[in-house]
Amino acid sequence: MLDENDWFTEIADAAGSAFSLRVTGRVHHEQTPFQTIEVYATETFGHLMVIDGFTMLSSRENFLYHEMLSHPALFTHPHPKRVAIIGGGDCGTLREVLRHAEVESAVQIDIDERVTRVAEIFFPELTESNHDPRATLLFEDGIRWIQQAPAQSLDVIIIDSTDPVGPAEGLFTTAFYRDCHRALAAGGLLVQQSESPLYHMDIIQGIYADTCAAGFEDHATLFFPQAIYPSGWWSATMASREGKLPAFRAAAATAPPFQSQYYTAEIHRAALAQPAFFKRAFETSDRNAP
Amino acid sequence: MLDENDWFTEIADAAGSAFSLRVTGRVHHEQTPFQTIEVYATETFGHLMVIDGFTMLSSRENFLYHEMLSHPALFTHPHPKRVAIIGGGDCGTLREVLRHAEVESAVQIDIDERVTRVAEIFFPELTESNHDPRATLLFEDGIRWIQQAPAQSLDVIIIDSTDPVGPAEGLFTTAFYRDCHRALAAGGLLVQQSESPLYHMDIIQGIYADTCAAGFEDHATLFFPQAIYPSGWWSATMASREGKLPAFRAAAATAPPFQSQYYTAEIHRAALAQPAFFKRAFETSDRNAP
Repeated sequence: MLDENDWFTEIADAAGSAFSLRVTGRVHHEQTPFQTIEVYATETFGHLMVIDGFTMLSSRENFLYHEMLSHPALFTHPHPKRVAIIGGGDCGTLREVLRHAEVESAVQIDIDERVTRVAEIFFPELTESNHDPRATLLFEDGIRWIQQAPAQSLDVIIIDSTDPVGPAEGLFTTAFYRDCHRALAAGGLLVQQSESPLYHMDIIQGIYADTCAAGFEDHATLFFPQAIYPSGWWSATMASREGKLPAFRAAAATAPPFQSQYYTAEIHRAALAQPAFFKRAFETSDRNAP
Repeated sequence: MLDENDWFTEIADAAGSAFSLRVTGRVHHEQTPFQTIEVYATETFGHLMVIDGFTMLSSRENFLYHEMLSHPALFTHPHPKRVAIIGGGDCGTLREVLRHAEVESAVQIDIDERVTRVAEIFFPELTESNHDPRATLLFEDGIRWIQQAPAQSLDVIIIDSTDPVGPAEGLFTTAFYRDCHRALAAGGLLVQQSESPLYHMDIIQGIYADTCAAGFEDHATLFFPQAIYPSGWWSATMASREGKLPAFRAAAATAPPFQSQYYTAEIHRAALAQPAFFKRAFETSDRNAP
């Protein structure tokens, strides 16, 4: 039995599982116009940010998610100059994106400014690049922002959202993907966090189908560990605006001008390997085969 | 708060985390001369076997562990004829080993016969190969068995044990590895479950150091997801009796004569990719660099 004074627990209700971290206290709590943000001090994972009861990130292992949501996409696009991050208010993805010298502008559009302000206090290492002259932080609705973005104005769109329920639901729809497709320039690509391969194959298959319906032509899913997310196993799915996703720039990835904690060129290649059950699940569906 | 009538929880105490599964009831409980065995019926993971309070396997996702503990090692050895499994009483590893036609004999040595008898009832799919004429099930101390095994009588030794505390402690020692080394024939290799890359780098480094001290010459660690184990991320470490571990038999692995749920040749290659932090941890230690 876990004493609720000593543990933070997230229940993955449909999955019938739960993950808990031992905490020394709740150090922040607020209700914003959009959601409830909490921060806990944990015994072994540093700070833990929780939104509407769902774990978002911990100091200790957010590197897995942030590196895998950014570096594979940026090393796949041949010249990622103009990047947009939808969501991502903790700024960890933005930081990783800005490590790439090719990036000329990186716009982060999160609906809730408070997520960023709270991250500045409790995850200062993630916000350290916020004053990079290439970075723009906008606090508005990412769906509307993409609708209004000039056509062909972006090279990479990163969808760094919460689960497809509540505020993020609209980020998993054909209508939204169609706007993304319009905003991407030739050669552009989209990458989206796509939940657990063990729990959410339906969501991954939905992303393939809906991005296809929106005009995206090729897909690849990246698999990686993520201790604090349901099942401890997570994924991100890339989709190309047109044609095949290019092979990633392995030479650049092998000697990146930054130090990573998880990502390497071998990890990039490895993350693309499809489990047997995943391959089979897509064989049985018609046309969105990976 | 998780009601203990509805949830089974394993606390990873030193790691400060816990994982829980929603259960509909405890369907088995016994104290053997060696340990306490429990089986729960879970809502979404099938049956769950628990030994001394630690999750061992679930019906739903044991395929990850069993496939990764067996197929990479068996496709790495050029002709794995004689295989010993130390521990592995649930018989899931034995089943995977026997899928390989090259295997002429597979001996499973688990100290506790009750684990196998309980698996026969609650995980019958894992014990379906127990009557294969190539299989021998022994219920005795694996450490003593290996001590008494004829020199050079085995091609592959699989150490499918619980954590290095309690009964399994002796399976993580130089003395035991020395006996394994003696029992292996030329070209032989050992593979051992080696805990979580996020939580137990000390254990993985210990396995490298202790197997080196016992005469093993080359190492490779395999990384894979495992939802019910602490951190959801697990590993197995291979060590070669002498010389470099050979490249795995990719052609055979690409068209295996059996259907897997996780393992493929690409997954094998991918599982060997080292996270940046792992690579660095071994760079700082002297001689056991992977």
